[in-house]
Amino acid sequence: MRVLGVDPGLTRCGVGVVDVGRDRSAVLVDVVVLRSPIDAPIEQRLLRIAEGLEAILDEHRPQAVALERVFARSDVSTIMGTAQISGVAMHLAAKRALPVALHTPSEVKAAITGYGRADKKQVTAMVTRILGLDTPPKPADAADALALAICHAWRTGPVAATTTDGASMTPAQKAWLAAERSAGLSGAARRLGR
Amino acid sequence: MRVLGVDPGLTRCGVGVVDVGRDRSAVLVDVVVLRSPIDAPIEQRLLRIAEGLEAILDEHRPQAVALERVFARSDVSTIMGTAQISGVAMHLAAKRALPVALHTPSEVKAAITGYGRADKKQVTAMVTRILGLDTPPKPADAADALALAICHAWRTGPVAATTTDGASMTPAQKAWLAAERSAGLSGAARRLGR
Repeated sequence: MRVLGVDPGLTRCGVGVVDVGRDRSAVLVDVVVLRSPIDAPIEQRLLRIAEGLEAILDEHRPQAVALERVFARSDVSTIMGTAQISGVAMHLAAKRALPVALHTPSEVKAAITGYGRADKKQVTAMVTRILGLDTPPKPADAADALALAICHAWRTGPVAATTTDGASMTPAQKAWLAAERSAGLSGAARRLGR
Repeated sequence: MRVLGVDPGLTRCGVGVVDVGRDRSAVLVDVVVLRSPIDAPIEQRLLRIAEGLEAILDEHRPQAVALERVFARSDVSTIMGTAQISGVAMHLAAKRALPVALHTPSEVKAAITGYGRADKKQVTAMVTRILGLDTPPKPADAADALALAICHAWRTGPVAATTTDGASMTPAQKAWLAAERSAGLSGAARRLGR
């Protein structure tokens, strides 16, 4: 399953793409931090980030998009820009008929490090180890985007053959199955002649 | 000058288009309230509203887009959806190279009614009178979107011939001039051979 993770931001927007196997192994496909100039008009900043996101979506064709769930109680000075970028990213995903999932920072930390209150250093270290990288992804926005993508694939999980009738599947499992089907990877789905 | 005003929202998004003359006269071009189902996934809701906005942008080809400036201190339950729609709307405007302007609710009220603390009823009544409508635009989101569009045109104002050298113009005046030029309406600009 190929997942694109987005750590939304107007000044720095982390974007990471990973391939995650049914055995939870994860391989880095691409990681980039999109930037926009602080002194540009807001709509130009959104356009710049959106163009970067579209290029990555179209180049790597992920099967799902995972974003950090932004809370209204977060840092007020950056919250609006973060929410605006999230809106743009979700719209671009929906335009491509990609499922979108939101995960909270503590869900990401728990999935990656086993501890919901892990600090940024611990998350970066685990992402580096999981992906088998020689050097840690930098800046933190890059590591966070990759952590989101891995977290999404791990939390969604592969779909067992017995649940492919759809009735007993969670929305996340349905998204996973849809992703596998669109990639032609689902043995279970193929066996069912779908 | 043709302005598209957006009162951003995920459940109801007011969109109004007005033509405003150099004498401040305003004519209704179109007004619509875009809606998305509350129980749909967030990315599908954004897509639905975005498709409506794109259709209106492409049908009426406004020269500027005006949005309500959303503050992080606003109602927490709706703030994220409002910010996400704002982000999408600004991105769609920037993609079409349209200038975007943000106005606060009190700026809009002051421009339309002369009083920054006017209530919704007063704003709707003035919008109805300014546009010479037989019945008030409903719901309030529709009237607010029209008020935003009129406010933007009035606050920007026509550009005097003496200021078309660009040096002494405010950003808003430059946007107005650019809009007039793109519409081929600016006598002042034509006289200067631009």
